[in-house]
Amino acid sequence: MNFRVPRGTVDLMPGEVEKWQFVEEKAREWCRRYHFFEVRTPLFEQTELFRRGVGETTDIVEKEMYTFEDRGGRSLTLRPEGTAGVVRSFVEKKVYGDPQPTKWYYIGPMYRYERPQAGRQRQFHQFGVEVFGTKEPLLDAEVIDLGYQFYRSLGLKGIRVELNSVGCPDCRPVHREQLVAFLSPRREELCKDCQSRLDRNPMRILDCKNETCQAITEQAPRMVDHLCEDCSPHFEAVKEGLDALRVPYVLNTRLVRGLDYYTQTAFEYIVDGVSGSIGGGGRYNGLVQEVGGPDMPGIGFGLGLERVMLALEHQGVELPLSNEVDCFLVTLGDEAQKRSLSLLQELRQGDCSAERDVQGRKMKAQMKAADRMNARLVAILGEEELLNNQIVVKELATGNQETIQLDKLVEYVRDKRNHG
Amino acid sequence: MNFRVPRGTVDLMPGEVEKWQFVEEKAREWCRRYHFFEVRTPLFEQTELFRRGVGETTDIVEKEMYTFEDRGGRSLTLRPEGTAGVVRSFVEKKVYGDPQPTKWYYIGPMYRYERPQAGRQRQFHQFGVEVFGTKEPLLDAEVIDLGYQFYRSLGLKGIRVELNSVGCPDCRPVHREQLVAFLSPRREELCKDCQSRLDRNPMRILDCKNETCQAITEQAPRMVDHLCEDCSPHFEAVKEGLDALRVPYVLNTRLVRGLDYYTQTAFEYIVDGVSGSIGGGGRYNGLVQEVGGPDMPGIGFGLGLERVMLALEHQGVELPLSNEVDCFLVTLGDEAQKRSLSLLQELRQGDCSAERDVQGRKMKAQMKAADRMNARLVAILGEEELLNNQIVVKELATGNQETIQLDKLVEYVRDKRNHG
Repeated sequence: MNFRVPRGTVDLMPGEVEKWQFVEEKAREWCRRYHFFEVRTPLFEQTELFRRGVGETTDIVEKEMYTFEDRGGRSLTLRPEGTAGVVRSFVEKKVYGDPQPTKWYYIGPMYRYERPQAGRQRQFHQFGVEVFGTKEPLLDAEVIDLGYQFYRSLGLKGIRVELNSVGCPDCRPVHREQLVAFLSPRREELCKDCQSRLDRNPMRILDCKNETCQAITEQAPRMVDHLCEDCSPHFEAVKEGLDALRVPYVLNTRLVRGLDYYTQTAFEYIVDGVSGSIGGGGRYNGLVQEVGGPDMPGIGFGLGLERVMLALEHQGVELPLSNEVDCFLVTLGDEAQKRSLSLLQELRQGDCSAERDVQGRKMKAQMKAADRMNARLVAILGEEELLNNQIVVKELATGNQETIQLDKLVEYVRDKRNHG
Repeated sequence: MNFRVPRGTVDLMPGEVEKWQFVEEKAREWCRRYHFFEVRTPLFEQTELFRRGVGETTDIVEKEMYTFEDRGGRSLTLRPEGTAGVVRSFVEKKVYGDPQPTKWYYIGPMYRYERPQAGRQRQFHQFGVEVFGTKEPLLDAEVIDLGYQFYRSLGLKGIRVELNSVGCPDCRPVHREQLVAFLSPRREELCKDCQSRLDRNPMRILDCKNETCQAITEQAPRMVDHLCEDCSPHFEAVKEGLDALRVPYVLNTRLVRGLDYYTQTAFEYIVDGVSGSIGGGGRYNGLVQEVGGPDMPGIGFGLGLERVMLALEHQGVELPLSNEVDCFLVTLGDEAQKRSLSLLQELRQGDCSAERDVQGRKMKAQMKAADRMNARLVAILGEEELLNNQIVVKELATGNQETIQLDKLVEYVRDKRNHG
């Protein structure tokens, strides 16, 4: 029987996975600097959490969730995004009772049943952050800056932010009403999805990709022109913060994000070489309460790591990865082979990466293996060296070779690695 | 509505998650030294893979899998262990065609529907390694050594290995026959599970925890006394390798592991303060072929990270974790607050972790927040300092305070962190 990786998922193999390690390490590094702490919630949650937290009328909840019953009859769903679970943990663990703000990040797989395409998988990965407990607009700018710095530090070019304000439950109904009044006379011209959206979630018509819909909404009332006295100065302050941080942004009044929970600030990251956004986020001042907590504001982003990988590839960015092994140990004869095991152990305990031949091959084949593995040094232990407590070390790049005391090997290998 | 974390899963919150980061970092570090490469397979696979790869008669497959249909009608199962998926990727990607051995590791969540208890969760985490392409017995010892070094480096005490050989398809049938002959007359005394095992998988009776079953099997024929001419010298060589590496081990002839795929070497790690094993593994020379590949040997282990955490806790091990923030920025007045955003950005771009007050509080409250966050330094920016391009820095541990040039702040903070 031939088994295949499930459709919409991939195996990340050595050679590829190191890029992921690098990107994740950068994410963690920036989170440390911005004083965010990691939180890890389970990969599945009660299905109802996503209905409530993500929104009943979203594509995610309507069409894309991996939902199943466990053996106890509970309806569980593989998380389609990261925020709902994090908010659930914030509420369940009563973290809202601690001094605020709470600054968290997560990295991990998410699941959506979509048509797989380049940079879009059914199992995909996000790096996300969430901040709870403050409405301060400069924090919005700081959060946006964190994502921006992360992308930039990977070597990506042309990163910029598209920014909008989607208002709040005070001002959004006014805009919604105007929008419906503007669009209703042209209902028949809208695409099927947007005709349905007109009744249920008219704001989402603004980001429809259908050209006719886009032409129709060109002159539609804009949310930013109808922000209330809370939302308007908030939006101005966010822009001032981004200016102070020199984060490049443009206003995009069509930007509404696909999730129901956003309020005020909404943003997406755009990059040269990839169409569509490579990440985004926004404020969700009502979500903590929606999930059963107190009335407490929040803001966050989720960055798609498959999208990052696609951008790195399309921009031809070479990440600074090394696959060198510090020392390959070649042994000649039975006695040397016996000694090799503990010698390798010493090297490894001494912080060196070390490898050997496990197939009992001749010297030439062992040297070839060392070369193929990109060994910095080869250490050659024969019967005679062993008798004299010595070992031959050879630098593969230069061909330089010398004989050293066996008990100096670890130090020698470490020095060569650290100082060339 | 109150949402709860699903039964058998936990949220890892800041304060706890740093321990996990530390343990995972150690795992990666040892893998680098032992020259293992990470591989990441999806968290779900075709259900049939686990039936085939883990074994139809195992508890895992019979009772514990999270199995569901996706929206396309495919039967998928959340991985209950790590090896089957890794072997599937090895075969599917035809990695067997590359020069061998292949040395891989994985870290991540697994899923089994079991009764939750201390150190046993339905979503649990394993660090595992797999080596394909060599039968060399010293490699078995090296793999066992890798796990041993990992545990030891965490500060765990009293780690030892229980070792057995479960033979191969040549010698196992002989032992099986003798075992059945020995046990059949006492069938009625065995527990219900073991009566069923006697027909389907008699070897598993040896590790039944029921006291009567244990008493009965005390004198049962031992696999190690019936090893064939391949398995016997292999087992001796593994023991010699462990001796050379000074890995403490004892023979446990009851050790058969719960999975069907093992051949020859089987081992478990035991540690003071935790009952049962905290990890284990073995050879699986038939598994690659079982999953559709060529006849190629393999060996690996899977270490339960929840079990590791439990052992660390029970042994009272303090991991060397720090939650310090390098610099907390206190600002006084509007101008200083405006400048603070870019100053923070400079600190963060300069590799410092930096934080500020987002609630517009008074100096005293800001100082208190800095203290609570365990800030090494507080930098205080007031109107006067700003005019003079200066800033006051105060070390919280000593109370020492000085005024420095504003543009020297990043350097100052970094120096203080690196050199105290």
